[in-house]
Amino acid sequence: MMQDNSRAAQPGAYDFSGLKAIFFNGTLTKSPGSSHTGRLIKISQGIMQKHSIKTEVIRTIDHPDIATGVWPDMREHGWPKDEWPGIFKRVMDADILVLAGPIWLGDNSSQTKKVIERLYACSSILNDQGQYAFYGKVGGCLITGNEDGIKHCAMDVLYSLQHLGCTIPPQADAGWIGEAGPGLSYGDERDDGSREGFDNDFTNRNTTFMTWNLMHLAKILNGQGGIPAHGNQRSKWDGGARFDFVNPEYR
Amino acid sequence: MMQDNSRAAQPGAYDFSGLKAIFFNGTLTKSPGSSHTGRLIKISQGIMQKHSIKTEVIRTIDHPDIATGVWPDMREHGWPKDEWPGIFKRVMDADILVLAGPIWLGDNSSQTKKVIERLYACSSILNDQGQYAFYGKVGGCLITGNEDGIKHCAMDVLYSLQHLGCTIPPQADAGWIGEAGPGLSYGDERDDGSREGFDNDFTNRNTTFMTWNLMHLAKILNGQGGIPAHGNQRSKWDGGARFDFVNPEYR
Amino acid sequence: MMQDNSRAAQPGAYDFSGLKAIFFNGTLTKSPGSSHTGRLIKISQGIMQKHSIKTEVIRTIDHPDIATGVWPDMREHGWPKDEWPGIFKRVMDADILVLAGPIWLGDNSSQTKKVIERLYACSSILNDQGQYAFYGKVGGCLITGNEDGIKHCAMDVLYSLQHLGCTIPPQADAGWIGEAGPGLSYGDERDDGSREGFDNDFTNRNTTFMTWNLMHLAKILNGQGGIPAHGNQRSKWDGGARFDFVNPEYR
Amino acid sequence: MMQDNSRAAQPGAYDFSGLKAIFFNGTLTKSPGSSHTGRLIKISQGIMQKHSIKTEVIRTIDHPDIATGVWPDMREHGWPKDEWPGIFKRVMDADILVLAGPIWLGDNSSQTKKVIERLYACSSILNDQGQYAFYGKVGGCLITGNEDGIKHCAMDVLYSLQHLGCTIPPQADAGWIGEAGPGLSYGDERDDGSREGFDNDFTNRNTTFMTWNLMHLAKILNGQGGIPAHGNQRSKWDGGARFDFVNPEYR
Repeated sequence: MMQDNSRAAQPGAYDFSGLKAIFFNGTLTKSPGSSHTGRLIKISQGIMQKHSIKTEVIRTIDHPDIATGVWPDMREHGWPKDEWPGIFKRVMDADILVLAGPIWLGDNSSQTKKVIERLYACSSILNDQGQYAFYGKVGGCLITGNEDGIKHCAMDVLYSLQHLGCTIPPQADAGWIGEAGPGLSYGDERDDGSREGFDNDFTNRNTTFMTWNLMHLAKILNGQGGIPAHGNQRSKWDGGARFDFVNPEYR
Repeated sequence: MMQDNSRAAQPGAYDFSGLKAIFFNGTLTKSPGSSHTGRLIKISQGIMQKHSIKTEVIRTIDHPDIATGVWPDMREHGWPKDEWPGIFKRVMDADILVLAGPIWLGDNSSQTKKVIERLYACSSILNDQGQYAFYGKVGGCLITGNEDGIKHCAMDVLYSLQHLGCTIPPQADAGWIGEAGPGLSYGDERDDGSREGFDNDFTNRNTTFMTWNLMHLAKILNGQGGIPAHGNQRSKWDGGARFDFVNPEYR
Repeated sequence: MMQDNSRAAQPGAYDFSGLKAIFFNGTLTKSPGSSHTGRLIKISQGIMQKHSIKTEVIRTIDHPDIATGVWPDMREHGWPKDEWPGIFKRVMDADILVLAGPIWLGDNSSQTKKVIERLYACSSILNDQGQYAFYGKVGGCLITGNEDGIKHCAMDVLYSLQHLGCTIPPQADAGWIGEAGPGLSYGDERDDGSREGFDNDFTNRNTTFMTWNLMHLAKILNGQGGIPAHGNQRSKWDGGARFDFVNPEYR
Repeated sequence: MMQDNSRAAQPGAYDFSGLKAIFFNGTLTKSPGSSHTGRLIKISQGIMQKHSIKTEVIRTIDHPDIATGVWPDMREHGWPKDEWPGIFKRVMDADILVLAGPIWLGDNSSQTKKVIERLYACSSILNDQGQYAFYGKVGGCLITGNEDGIKHCAMDVLYSLQHLGCTIPPQADAGWIGEAGPGLSYGDERDDGSREGFDNDFTNRNTTFMTWNLMHLAKILNGQGGIPAHGNQRSKWDGGARFDFVNPEYR
């Protein structure tokens, strides 16, 4: 292993300006209703903003004109309106993509699934190197619920993001849930006036680490011009390149 | 987005020598029985070897002295033998970690779970920067079965690897399954003498892309001295550092 | 074990008339577009109809006025329209509930999740015995995709149905997927004019067994007046009944 | 819907004597170490015993001679010992099967997976009606962890049990987890001498309801002689019976 971690950590040395981040919030609650997930997003967003990263949060339930389906533009498939194509342009322009959302019955919300479907609908687009268009981006996940399911939801989200072509940094998920059973949700006011979950060291630490790891990896990949373009180009594979792959039949 | 993919792809420019990779094979079949998953591992391993990466495959079912549990050395917890501590040293020495295994009833095998448990048992170890010890490594996943479950198994494996601190490159899983229902497994001989799955373009492409993306990311992170050590150091967080995290209670 | 299977199987003896079944189809394709999942539903529905069971298929994507959310009637929560309350009455009137849908990126569709959310929204309703309102119903699952994920999707669906209070008969899921990688979907026309998957013995058998097991269990539970009402009544538990539960603290 | 819940609930009327239950405990801790999951099993077991059900708990980690693999008797496949065949006889003799276990990294333990593999290894055995041998049994699930994953683990366990042929009663899973992050596990002593989780109303209620629903369904199915044997017999399907299935190709 060639790794050498001896470089001194100099906070001032970290310049993330120029990076862009998009957060999708899959809450089922329309504005101006309060989103528990939105409270957690703000922590991560706040750290990014402090480092001059341009951030955007898209709360999809407030955008009823995002069509449902698996094509880039559903207007070509019988839907009268589709706000997705405009949103997707901003996704393509971002370096950091965070899918955030609530837990319902232990799983991601229908809004989170809808966003994954629309991202997936665009997964055949290639960049100018012939790689999938999400190559070079980094992905993370934030989940809130009142009792169970952060990891289950995050497994699905992070799997989807890497499948699309995002890089997943270390510990790229964070969340909050309470003890088994019904109870307060993230940020709800307790009897003593304090807020549920806001003092949870694990949630705070994981959210912070996730955010920094997203920033570090996005910076690194940007500095590299994305993921090096060899061995992973769909256009070249389809054209016959095999990149040292040997069919086991012919060994 | 600062990304620039204009750099020309020059195959000769990729030098991965010095990197090390470990594959765990979670098959339930002891040697010298044939492992279907082992056949897929060989494709990825072959590409790495061609690029002078030192590779090792550990087929855990052949190592009955790997104890079961969630401590780094189970000999300190009532087990007479434990081969894991020696294996874990090699894991720590590797840059690339691939968990491979079969699908049983739609899920990972008990051998794959046992390895994840033992890796997790060592997850509190920190490197000299105060980061989790897996930081700087990259992780991937290979799955074979005869009918269903690649993505379900890979979700769990990749989630576990990123949770430990590995970076997950784009499209870091690959696998083969046949049509719904019983049938031949990967690499089994067909009536015409050819081998099931070996001609599956999707499996071959994904295995190749995964392998190259693991190599690219491992090289990049090695060149960086691992993941930059700021905002993600457990020791510093525990010591009171907050890395621009602001408790939402006090905004 | 007291079980005695000696009773002769007499097909004529099975009278399921009077039973009602609802299938939800979570396809993302609007009518009149063809739904692959719809083709599989027809097999199960056909068997039920042959036995005088009244069946209904609700293809939710054709019902844009089903609101999104986790309340029984979203019109009370800021939505101008909500078709769900009328549909839910028919769910309550049914004995058999089958959630069917496609696989996208290895998971259930957003339409399937939306239905689960709306069913869950009504999960606090109790019957006149104080049991959850879904008690006495039976649940099943049908999944189609072109390459991977039947079991993953079915796990989530069947878990949700039993959590709501449905009984899950033996082998209550069925589906079709093809070999790993892109390809034809269920029922698509092959070059030779035959239909993909229609000759899959595993799919046909599982769909048939699921259907019969749903019918058998629905009949049995109906004959019993639902699930016996003792030990499982939310209203009585909340009123202080403990049904032989002993807190381990006081053993 | 024919359901009629008017029958009065008369506790004395419930006679479950003659029924047998097996609990598998997938803890990774060997005896005499304390198992958190074991504490939860005792609650369910206690209720059953009060109703004269014969119960057995098998803590597999204490049985190192249970081989790993997917055959009914691994001694025929190169393993020197295999305790499973004797255990499986008792499984076949039981009416109620509960898989219980801990959560590690959000998923079931390797011991739980090993048991599922061995049960699955026996899934081709048919009863004298030609149904799968697990038909007529009922299945449930108990999960403990310190922070996240009851539903994820239960999804997998309950899916596996129904796939084998067990019937899953309403709300057939229960468990305990604490708030997100490290903390006490189920039944651990708190500073004030009380026990973590023992006062959790949700855990206590769900465990009680699960237990009663398992007992009710086991009694009902026993009274019916198992699942009615028509439409679900593997032997007859293989012999050409189609049970009103019509190939959609020929509609």
